[in-house]
Amino acid sequence: MRWIDEEDIEDLAIGAALLGTGGGGDPYLGKLMVQKCIRDNGPIQMIDVTEVPDAAWVIPTAMMGAPTIMMEKIPNGDEALKSMRMLEKQTGISAYATMPIECGGLNSTVPFVVASKAGIPLVDGDGMGRAFPELQMETFHIYGISGTPMVLHNERGDRVLLETLDNYMLEHISRGIAVRMGGAAHVAEYMMTGADVKRTAIHGTMTLCMALGQSIRHAQKTKRNPIEAIQEVTRNSIYGEAIVVFRGKVTDIERQSTDGFVRGKALVAGLGEYEEKELKVDFQNENLFATVDGQAIAMVPDLITFLDQETGMPITTESIKYGFRVICLAIPTPDIMRTPEALEVWGPRYFGYDTDYEPVEIIQQRRGTQHV
Amino acid sequence: MRWIDEEDIEDLAIGAALLGTGGGGDPYLGKLMVQKCIRDNGPIQMIDVTEVPDAAWVIPTAMMGAPTIMMEKIPNGDEALKSMRMLEKQTGISAYATMPIECGGLNSTVPFVVASKAGIPLVDGDGMGRAFPELQMETFHIYGISGTPMVLHNERGDRVLLETLDNYMLEHISRGIAVRMGGAAHVAEYMMTGADVKRTAIHGTMTLCMALGQSIRHAQKTKRNPIEAIQEVTRNSIYGEAIVVFRGKVTDIERQSTDGFVRGKALVAGLGEYEEKELKVDFQNENLFATVDGQAIAMVPDLITFLDQETGMPITTESIKYGFRVICLAIPTPDIMRTPEALEVWGPRYFGYDTDYEPVEIIQQRRGTQHV
Repeated sequence: MRWIDEEDIEDLAIGAALLGTGGGGDPYLGKLMVQKCIRDNGPIQMIDVTEVPDAAWVIPTAMMGAPTIMMEKIPNGDEALKSMRMLEKQTGISAYATMPIECGGLNSTVPFVVASKAGIPLVDGDGMGRAFPELQMETFHIYGISGTPMVLHNERGDRVLLETLDNYMLEHISRGIAVRMGGAAHVAEYMMTGADVKRTAIHGTMTLCMALGQSIRHAQKTKRNPIEAIQEVTRNSIYGEAIVVFRGKVTDIERQSTDGFVRGKALVAGLGEYEEKELKVDFQNENLFATVDGQAIAMVPDLITFLDQETGMPITTESIKYGFRVICLAIPTPDIMRTPEALEVWGPRYFGYDTDYEPVEIIQQRRGTQHV
Repeated sequence: MRWIDEEDIEDLAIGAALLGTGGGGDPYLGKLMVQKCIRDNGPIQMIDVTEVPDAAWVIPTAMMGAPTIMMEKIPNGDEALKSMRMLEKQTGISAYATMPIECGGLNSTVPFVVASKAGIPLVDGDGMGRAFPELQMETFHIYGISGTPMVLHNERGDRVLLETLDNYMLEHISRGIAVRMGGAAHVAEYMMTGADVKRTAIHGTMTLCMALGQSIRHAQKTKRNPIEAIQEVTRNSIYGEAIVVFRGKVTDIERQSTDGFVRGKALVAGLGEYEEKELKVDFQNENLFATVDGQAIAMVPDLITFLDQETGMPITTESIKYGFRVICLAIPTPDIMRTPEALEVWGPRYFGYDTDYEPVEIIQQRRGTQHV
């Protein structure tokens, strides 16, 4: 158990944006929302996955929709709580705690707002270990939890209770609802017992986000190399050590909002040891697949994140621009995210790439490129 | 109060397809579903709007989606009942009766299936007095009833409870859900008290459908002109007397399924007194606007229906084909459908036509064309 204060949230927002692999929404907005809650209600209680009683119920909360649209419709912070309350009323089950469904600027912070307003703990873990574009892309789903009953609210107060036979239909119908609700919705879903949380969640990801954010901020203050700081933190986590896979200057960004997603690609011309090479990163809300001169160098579910070359700060797909000097960082995902069941749900083939998943650290060994 | 038997349903299906103005789904399919219910459970009780106790609750039931898609996914008949049951459970209110929301091949018959399976009466009335493509196009909406809480089911068993702040958002979100549920959904909506039914429903439309269907069938048997039979029935109803506005041969049909609707137009080359003239009828599920050589001759909310020239049988927008010889019939709508509030919701301007509503009988007087 740990009490989370405003400074922890400063760190959380940065680290979650890093694990968010370009998606998961604007970290600045989410941070401000939680910090206001902490000023109003005091520090927020965060508990380990192992601290949730087996028979207690956890109701994860989140936003869904295109991050670019979320930024235009600033939530008042009560919507996800209302979704959780409606789910409690529908099921007759009270939430012992809430939990993030993913790591990302917005969706790591939304559940802190809910925890603060409801006066309940937040569970230190999530179901993606990063951000992913679709709602069945959850260890919760992969290891047998139903995403529904699910509740969606928009900022006007329109609301929906959704029950589907499987989590693919959950994604399909709820995505359509979020689009028609105005592009974004505030949701409560994947409610499960403490026993199931222990079995299916990726443990400790909020603590990891905070450690990453703290290390980046500390590196900035002490003029230390932020990449080394990130590598140090990841080395001692359930993730693999972060790997620099490219450095360069952004030369082109293609970005389209369709069907509730932001899809596109970023092109980066290499600098330094990557001179004369070109990196291409495809994204669907999140960065999915990176190639250098046509050769795959990192792919889902491994994390692919752009960092500002100077500050080491993560850059989201909605804010990356022509001319940015960036480091492309890859982080090997934990084992729970690389099982055959998991790769079926979020491996490269699901996203339409005609290739089997190859772990980034293996590719990197082959490339023989030196780490920084 | 009246008991409805298999033969009544034979008539109902024909009359409802006529009032359905080309939309509202296949009359054949709906008819078979109700007739099977009557064979299983006996005749169905139909009550007048005035017979519903003021404090009793009526829950209308229906299908929504593109009629062409509905025909490909034959419902088992339990889905709309399940939607009504879920709405009852959600609200703690039992349905005293069910009711159609519109006249049309499918949506006039679906509530009979629900009434039969639930063992409750069906109320003789509806909220459109015809078929319309959108769910806020209801006298219920126009005169102040909320369409939500609403429940949608698909044939798989996926289901949604929807609550919106207004009936336009109800239409917008539920349409998206129906599309993602597979193109069609089975719904319960616009629940209201008997007092509100009396105030807002269009009275006696099921009886009118049956009388129309009976008159067409009787005309066929006795070799009488079916148009005259239809005119006789409409003359003695809350609708105006049916008017023949065109006769001819279908020369072109344009039809597209988009956003859960079937949109398009039919072109008809005139025959007899309409020789050398061309009729164009635009539709969005239902026939909306008819012009002859560019001059408006009938428009929403007045009813525009194609009949087979030989048999007098109504033809839906999904079954009309090149080469059909047709009569285009228009029926003036009742006063409750022509108030300023009503025309705001379903007048020609709502559908994008830059013209004020002009009643078909007034246009017809100006045209000076003789009735048959």
